[in-house]
Amino acid sequence: MVTSELSNHHHHHHNTINSPMGKPNSRSKTSSIFLSDGCLFLGGAFSTLILIWGFSSFTTFPKDTLNLEHLSQTDAASPRAPDLTFDPPDKTFFDDPQMGYTLDKKVRNWDEKRAEWLKLHPSFSDGAKERVLMITGSQPEPCRNPIGDHLLLRFFKNKVDYCRLHGYDILYNNLLLDPKMFAYWAKYPVLRAAMMAHPEAEWIWWVDSDALFTDMEFKLPLERYKGHNLVVHGWPHLIHEKRSWTGLNAGVFLIRNCQWSLDLMDSWASMGPQTPNYEKWGKTLRSTFKDKFFPESDDQTGLAYLIAIEKEKWADRIYLENEYYFQGYWKEIVGTFQNISERYKEMEEGVRRLRRRHAEKVSESYGEIREEYLKDAGIGQGNWRRPFITHFTGCQPCSGKYNAMYSADDCWNGMHKALNFADNQVLRNYGFLRPDLLLNSVSPVPFDYPHP
Amino acid sequence: MVTSELSNHHHHHHNTINSPMGKPNSRSKTSSIFLSDGCLFLGGAFSTLILIWGFSSFTTFPKDTLNLEHLSQTDAASPRAPDLTFDPPDKTFFDDPQMGYTLDKKVRNWDEKRAEWLKLHPSFSDGAKERVLMITGSQPEPCRNPIGDHLLLRFFKNKVDYCRLHGYDILYNNLLLDPKMFAYWAKYPVLRAAMMAHPEAEWIWWVDSDALFTDMEFKLPLERYKGHNLVVHGWPHLIHEKRSWTGLNAGVFLIRNCQWSLDLMDSWASMGPQTPNYEKWGKTLRSTFKDKFFPESDDQTGLAYLIAIEKEKWADRIYLENEYYFQGYWKEIVGTFQNISERYKEMEEGVRRLRRRHAEKVSESYGEIREEYLKDAGIGQGNWRRPFITHFTGCQPCSGKYNAMYSADDCWNGMHKALNFADNQVLRNYGFLRPDLLLNSVSPVPFDYPHP
Repeated sequence: MVTSELSNHHHHHHNTINSPMGKPNSRSKTSSIFLSDGCLFLGGAFSTLILIWGFSSFTTFPKDTLNLEHLSQTDAASPRAPDLTFDPPDKTFFDDPQMGYTLDKKVRNWDEKRAEWLKLHPSFSDGAKERVLMITGSQPEPCRNPIGDHLLLRFFKNKVDYCRLHGYDILYNNLLLDPKMFAYWAKYPVLRAAMMAHPEAEWIWWVDSDALFTDMEFKLPLERYKGHNLVVHGWPHLIHEKRSWTGLNAGVFLIRNCQWSLDLMDSWASMGPQTPNYEKWGKTLRSTFKDKFFPESDDQTGLAYLIAIEKEKWADRIYLENEYYFQGYWKEIVGTFQNISERYKEMEEGVRRLRRRHAEKVSESYGEIREEYLKDAGIGQGNWRRPFITHFTGCQPCSGKYNAMYSADDCWNGMHKALNFADNQVLRNYGFLRPDLLLNSVSPVPFDYPHP
Repeated sequence: MVTSELSNHHHHHHNTINSPMGKPNSRSKTSSIFLSDGCLFLGGAFSTLILIWGFSSFTTFPKDTLNLEHLSQTDAASPRAPDLTFDPPDKTFFDDPQMGYTLDKKVRNWDEKRAEWLKLHPSFSDGAKERVLMITGSQPEPCRNPIGDHLLLRFFKNKVDYCRLHGYDILYNNLLLDPKMFAYWAKYPVLRAAMMAHPEAEWIWWVDSDALFTDMEFKLPLERYKGHNLVVHGWPHLIHEKRSWTGLNAGVFLIRNCQWSLDLMDSWASMGPQTPNYEKWGKTLRSTFKDKFFPESDDQTGLAYLIAIEKEKWADRIYLENEYYFQGYWKEIVGTFQNISERYKEMEEGVRRLRRRHAEKVSESYGEIREEYLKDAGIGQGNWRRPFITHFTGCQPCSGKYNAMYSADDCWNGMHKALNFADNQVLRNYGFLRPDLLLNSVSPVPFDYPHP
């Protein structure tokens, strides 16, 4: 069982929790958030530890240096569609008895094995370099928070919408594939299995259940990451100089399906609770990153450690993204939706092409056109570009707990606002809009809206 | 608001409801299921009315006449992948100010308009005839049943899994696009908008929130439906001779994105609550289909009416499917999972090709291979082919209510079993299996499992 597993491992834990949402629950009296929070095991480090993003997501962002126009991919080639009905009898890594889907089964020469598989499946080798599989998930059990599963459903719908618009596959995991790897560690067995099961995917994109897409048009600038194997939101100086465990956020990351990533995950997961060194790693991480205030080894600090201490081995291939909201702190974002909506409306009033109705499936082309008019939007705090991903760090939709510095309304209303802000971008393609971001009623959109 | 809308329209209603699941709720004291059920508006007629499927799904199935091997599509052509970044400036129906996404905006010459759009988007015209968009959804508000949204999340995950395996797009709608079209009528404004927004899709597949795929490999036999525009589970003699409103089930249907379907939906929706004729239609439908026991006009009986009474106009293009579980009644199915699992395991023990591990994306090819070994499986009650879609008719996951002839355990355990039975087929591609269909713990699958 997940909860007993969690309770065995986390007896002593500080309690920074506000009163839980919803009905009183006998289990919520315990002093351990791990014990009382059923929603932990797949959440990101931030949401599960009920911390907040201590730094503005864009503290170090040099304004006006980023031209996002060049980030979007404009590959005009038209590759073949994958043929789902073709698997030739030729032997591949799948036929190797030594190959397994679990982290303990070492894989060697994965890049060659994947390449061989792709060669045998030519319809998949077309466009393989840009192929992304998104993975998200939550705990196996229903949420404690009465509106928790409803929020998870909406967060999932948001990701499915994003994936439909961009032609990505998406996988929702709600199982503990390795019962010893609970909480934020649970994603690694899933990633490992998914890499084997999806040799056609170049990138695996982990997105926490409490993160959502608030710019449905924006496309990952994969070209930018071609020399890297892991992309995560972070700031080099906070990791290398300040030695802060919040120098990156491990709740959203893009990892290349390659041997390097398998090796990294081996090192990364070797700090996890399934190993005899778990406690030792907790101490090491805490003594390296002084602002880490809880004793357990966690994946986010673990990654910061690999970047800072095993720098030679890993850092070159890890892209610390901080020039757009690869993921952003919701507190900094939610208040800007109103202004952003108005600015986008103004933009569309001035540009007929952006008002043009179109099939949902060609929305990416309108995202490209829009970039021309976003040059002056800036990015990050105080600016008016739609944030790409908004992450509800410190709010726990499933458990219903949240950081004491917020109110329940901050968290749940913030989520509804963000979900509806995003959903309006989807609805528009179906001819509707929600006039009020906190309500569920919609209006049909007139032709040529918002013509002045 | 949805609930007030519902309450205005449904004051008098018989109550066949057992005590609701979960905690006592003041609102559940009302005598109207429409009033007290927040989960109605997108459910199918069966689940929302808490009825049961009065006939065995396969009452009239002639055994041994169906060879499903020939149903699966084996189109070996490799069409181009859709180009999401290309929308030429040429005018299409989207640029016509008269075109709207709502049911009241009449569309003419839709087939020509779609064809023109496809011509201008050649990467989408490849494979257009087989392109399917699945649509499902639920109410905007959280469920009353404490595990309702958790179940909806799992039902949605199941559909996303199925769509990923078969390369289909999926849309989840949780809004009332036309507030007057509540309950089971709510799907029609969504279908109408989706047809406009997805000219690339030949078929729209509506699947109720309480229906799930229990054969992840089985592929819609579209070839079979090439002369038809609407596919629904049903039996001609029950509609034409017995005049039973349960002669078909409108909770799952496949509708072609064409002018005929728009015309049909105009006629169909003209019986809905947004029209002045709603009450009149209730009387007409009830006097035509004597076993319909509630006074309101509903979409399922409405369709039966169009088939039986406006036969000349519609029936030729409506395929009443009853040779496999296009959708099946859960009570008839859930008890068979154990035997089916054992028979499939036996089958795989004997066939190395079926034990072969493979990339998830080429699962369809293994589905085709399996057909050879399913010839003797039969289909429907008493046989051992995996049922394609299991529909929890009479159980309401969201409201927590269910037909008085079931127990809560019947419904919720049945759903968990069905969801896990399906999920095991997905998990297998990631190297795992749930040994117990009622538990969430998993085991890694050994190489060559289940080698004898």
